[in-house]
Amino acid sequence: MTQSLHTAVIGLGSMGYGMAKSLLRSGHLTHGFDVTQSKIDRFIAEGGTPGRLLDVAPNLQAVVCVVLNADQTESVLFGKDGVAPQLSSGAVILSCATVSPDFAQEMEARCAALNIHYLDAPISGGAVKAGQGELSFMASGSSTAFAKARPVLDSLSKTVFELGDSAGAGSAMKATNQMLAGVHIAAMAEAITFAMTQGISPDTFLNVIRKCAGTSWMLENRAPHIINGDYTPHSSVNIWPKDLGIVTDIATAAGFAAPITQTALAQFQSAASFGLGLEDDAAVAKVYAHQAGLTLPGEDT
Amino acid sequence: MTQSLHTAVIGLGSMGYGMAKSLLRSGHLTHGFDVTQSKIDRFIAEGGTPGRLLDVAPNLQAVVCVVLNADQTESVLFGKDGVAPQLSSGAVILSCATVSPDFAQEMEARCAALNIHYLDAPISGGAVKAGQGELSFMASGSSTAFAKARPVLDSLSKTVFELGDSAGAGSAMKATNQMLAGVHIAAMAEAITFAMTQGISPDTFLNVIRKCAGTSWMLENRAPHIINGDYTPHSSVNIWPKDLGIVTDIATAAGFAAPITQTALAQFQSAASFGLGLEDDAAVAKVYAHQAGLTLPGEDT
Repeated sequence: MTQSLHTAVIGLGSMGYGMAKSLLRSGHLTHGFDVTQSKIDRFIAEGGTPGRLLDVAPNLQAVVCVVLNADQTESVLFGKDGVAPQLSSGAVILSCATVSPDFAQEMEARCAALNIHYLDAPISGGAVKAGQGELSFMASGSSTAFAKARPVLDSLSKTVFELGDSAGAGSAMKATNQMLAGVHIAAMAEAITFAMTQGISPDTFLNVIRKCAGTSWMLENRAPHIINGDYTPHSSVNIWPKDLGIVTDIATAAGFAAPITQTALAQFQSAASFGLGLEDDAAVAKVYAHQAGLTLPGEDT
Repeated sequence: MTQSLHTAVIGLGSMGYGMAKSLLRSGHLTHGFDVTQSKIDRFIAEGGTPGRLLDVAPNLQAVVCVVLNADQTESVLFGKDGVAPQLSSGAVILSCATVSPDFAQEMEARCAALNIHYLDAPISGGAVKAGQGELSFMASGSSTAFAKARPVLDSLSKTVFELGDSAGAGSAMKATNQMLAGVHIAAMAEAITFAMTQGISPDTFLNVIRKCAGTSWMLENRAPHIINGDYTPHSSVNIWPKDLGIVTDIATAAGFAAPITQTALAQFQSAASFGLGLEDDAAVAKVYAHQAGLTLPGEDT
């Protein structure tokens, strides 16, 4: 049996909501918080515990922070009405946003000054796995932070990569994974449209490439969206200017040239500038199709 | 039982030699030809049939051409002492080099004028699978060309993708696969060195990424070469300026911008200019390491 904790999830987006539900299902007393009141209400209706964040904060043993980026993470933890100073000594914060390693280290130090534990805990796996409690965590932090977070990790994860004994390593690994994932999506888009210029249908492209050395996890996952002409956002174009921007910022700070990542980033920025930001990230293929005068499946001719 | 043919393999490099051995093992009467006499002698010693190419050509039912590029293919088939005009009507040529679709169509037309069948038949899988008769073919050509080539394909392949009824489609699909494969190798090199700047070891990189959305077939195949510091060329750096150059030439001719492919091509061109052309293609990581002042596994510090 997993130990039952008093927890809160801050940020009830597609990932956070699923994680909050997974914590509930595991028997944790769980609050859900968000800037949108209707999401809070919906979560309470499904079994979440009511209460204002600042009222319940002193009782929380673990806080899972699942917001968009570093700015939102800092605001939630240390901004006006930030939760970190309200927590009791010994509580743990699991910070799941994709941020720079430097930022994660700064958060860990500021939490330590309050006698709070901080786990650098970015996630991978998508909304469906969040709801199933089968995420992957790329985590780093002190052994105490891991121990305090363990019941939460057990409820949310299929795999926990333990990457080091201080914050930063988890975020560095997440940035590395995002770098590859983003490049592979854009490369798939470049290749599927290149193939179209040579008379190869998107369908044939996937059927052959998935069995050859040119395949990737992202290609097999995203190419079907293009074949079906379905750009319902499982993960949106707008994720990539943000995440690849974090990667190139980290690279620049380290004096590291990342030309392929920079080029993929530019393609996602083009996609966003064409008004595709809220579509599924496979819509980066529309940038290529537009440039080459191709008609993708499902598009009006 | 596979029908036994009288065949010849032209080009006894690492791929061609393995393919010639696979044809022998299947019971085909097989000649091997190469610009290097010692390779011919070695193949005869292992069971190949002796004879000068121009003497045996009228008797050949199938010719497998496994040379480096379009220039060599044209020279072997139609140059001085070229084999195509010496073949008997109804013979089939399987052309395996990576070439442009336009070139493949031109070869098919010139063969048709001689009443010879041409199968556009680029291959994927590497030298080991060539020797095991387990290659993948990305093939296109007339139904007669396929029928005549079938006993050879049966002896050499695990999978034959039949991509269309005329030459060009096979080469287009091969170019598409090479585009992705080359980009994924360079992206792996960019990511594994980026991770090193953040304190993540190449070992940890592979252990985590292979289980995450950032993985690719090429990443899992090539990253171990970097981890082991072993650049024995399974496939050399020099392949990629050639193959990605073919891709960008095709793209340019089609008015298609391929910025990620262009960027990966530039990284392989840098690797070649650093004198790494004959090393395994994973050595493109050395371009990144050199730029960032990193020491890869197995390098002297």
